[in-house]
Amino acid sequence: MARNPRFDPLFEPIKIGPVTAPNRFYQVPHCSGMGYLRPQMLAAMRGVKAEGGWGVVCTEYCSIDAGSDESPYPHASLRDDDDIKNLRLMTEAVHRHGSLAGVELWYGGHSSANMESREIPLDVASLPNTSSLGMPLQSQAMSIADIEHFRGLYRAAAQRALAAGFDIVYVYATHQYLINNFLSLELNQREDEYGGALENRVRLLRQVIEDVGEIVAGRSALAVRYSIPRDYNQDPDQLLESFKLVAELPDLWDITVNDYHLEMGSSRFVREASNQDAVAKIKSLTSKPVVSVGRFTSPDTMLAQINSGVQDFIGAARPSIADPFLPSKINEGREEDIRECIGCNVCYAHDSLGVPIRCTQNPTTLLK
Amino acid sequence: MARNPRFDPLFEPIKIGPVTAPNRFYQVPHCSGMGYLRPQMLAAMRGVKAEGGWGVVCTEYCSIDAGSDESPYPHASLRDDDDIKNLRLMTEAVHRHGSLAGVELWYGGHSSANMESREIPLDVASLPNTSSLGMPLQSQAMSIADIEHFRGLYRAAAQRALAAGFDIVYVYATHQYLINNFLSLELNQREDEYGGALENRVRLLRQVIEDVGEIVAGRSALAVRYSIPRDYNQDPDQLLESFKLVAELPDLWDITVNDYHLEMGSSRFVREASNQDAVAKIKSLTSKPVVSVGRFTSPDTMLAQINSGVQDFIGAARPSIADPFLPSKINEGREEDIRECIGCNVCYAHDSLGVPIRCTQNPTTLLK
Repeated sequence: MARNPRFDPLFEPIKIGPVTAPNRFYQVPHCSGMGYLRPQMLAAMRGVKAEGGWGVVCTEYCSIDAGSDESPYPHASLRDDDDIKNLRLMTEAVHRHGSLAGVELWYGGHSSANMESREIPLDVASLPNTSSLGMPLQSQAMSIADIEHFRGLYRAAAQRALAAGFDIVYVYATHQYLINNFLSLELNQREDEYGGALENRVRLLRQVIEDVGEIVAGRSALAVRYSIPRDYNQDPDQLLESFKLVAELPDLWDITVNDYHLEMGSSRFVREASNQDAVAKIKSLTSKPVVSVGRFTSPDTMLAQINSGVQDFIGAARPSIADPFLPSKINEGREEDIRECIGCNVCYAHDSLGVPIRCTQNPTTLLK
Repeated sequence: MARNPRFDPLFEPIKIGPVTAPNRFYQVPHCSGMGYLRPQMLAAMRGVKAEGGWGVVCTEYCSIDAGSDESPYPHASLRDDDDIKNLRLMTEAVHRHGSLAGVELWYGGHSSANMESREIPLDVASLPNTSSLGMPLQSQAMSIADIEHFRGLYRAAAQRALAAGFDIVYVYATHQYLINNFLSLELNQREDEYGGALENRVRLLRQVIEDVGEIVAGRSALAVRYSIPRDYNQDPDQLLESFKLVAELPDLWDITVNDYHLEMGSSRFVREASNQDAVAKIKSLTSKPVVSVGRFTSPDTMLAQINSGVQDFIGAARPSIADPFLPSKINEGREEDIRECIGCNVCYAHDSLGVPIRCTQNPTTLLK
């Protein structure tokens, strides 16, 4: 069967900095319960998504240093050169189908209990926390030397990302991780050039974007994952104002709302495209392409996102798990065959147990 | 410095079936939080124990099939041939120092939630359970065909154990795992030849011992891990009577008491060598060498175990974690330098979080 021409806009190639996505279907970074512990399983799972037509396929959060370790949850890793060959399995599996591979470089900060590495996590301040396993932990406030060191970690990981063959390299600036915490008025009480005024709180984000940009320039795209409140008129951390200071720096913005309960809400309470007002607001503040999730399973909703200019890519995590072949089904005029994500979050539940994700709609997460 | 001659009996070579341990220091199977997920870390950790003088160094519980999967807890694995090279790293590390390497072949049964493999666990009966992560599960009662299949799994894993270079191959018949459950009067309500009378309940254990014995005959020793109640006069499952039926079949008995709270009790409540009465009872019922744990950290207590004939080897899990070099320190007359296990169980606590074990007395678990 042939594609309904109405959906042609979903299949346009789109430039992202120096690379070009073959279409607008974009699997944003999402956890897998595989990560650095199961590199071959991970490569197979990501490769199937590329086979199914996702034009961009990303890793999960990818640690840049042993100080950012959420064991027993198996995130990805580019901590050292030995990790390169693990993730090259994934980039090769994605490239085999003509898609772009993206990597989300990550440093956790005070959310990382570092149960394997036993390092002390660095963060904007010395912050107490309790890990998801109930372990108490405390971050160490970063000195200026620590910040320089941290920037070096991001640069080194970006180099490794290029060596592993990634086409899109992320700076990760949301989800209560370190860079996000520098943006926070509540957490950032620093009295040096990284705290206080808005441009000081944005300084680390700007520097890391510039650092990574220098490394990847001309070779891969630079993406930033960022979030604003769903109701951005209530914006205590001035995240919209911060955004304006760096809006033109990366090649792509991966936008969400800063509340997991909304971002990956259950279908019973959170509707498809429910964050589109916030995403559209960001889109209005940058000339760069924007991607965001919204549990998109309806081709018509996807089309409306593009045609109305809310965003440039159809971001997906859960719908790409429920149906890795969603794009190719639309392409073949088989919309009725799409396995729709029902937002039950059994995927996330199993990731949270430290085991590979599963799906009520697609038992292996690999089926057509 | 030189060894105190008083401790010479601890350093006698001892035959175990077709192999010979260089001394009486025996690291029994114990969890590591490394297992099949971290084969190189595991090999290094076990190798350091051999370097430190442990004459036998064993794996943790080692799955023989995908139906026996305690993910996210990383047990060892000989499920398929690809696992052989992972565990060969460990046997080579142990052999490098002249020690014997042992592997504990394991099938969990109704305690395995199989969160990675998603298989249905087999057991003596269809039994409900709750995994340590709180997941409800139910085993499937084994048919006679399932039992034949299960015996084949043990045989195949024993072949792989030989290919990986192990010198001692275990049948694991305690700790509420499958073979143990066949022995249980309470759980085994079968009406076929595997249930009812004592010799029927012992049948599977006997068959698996004989099966594995045929595979490894002349090439590696056959050990059985078994337990009786600490107060063996109260023995509702007739475990002593069962023992008598198979007492001469293996080359070595690894004995414990069937209660983790005693077997790995905190030092505040459970003293060194606290299970010796039960171990001595077993020793009186077999001509085969016996090993058992007892949080042995005092060379004089160890010596008393040997001289009084309670057991033939000084079994250790936690003391070998707190001090991998315990044997060589005794050998060098440096008893005062032993890092004594204090029975705090932080090792077990971290294994139970699905991350590598740590130790309050030996931060990396690798230090002299």
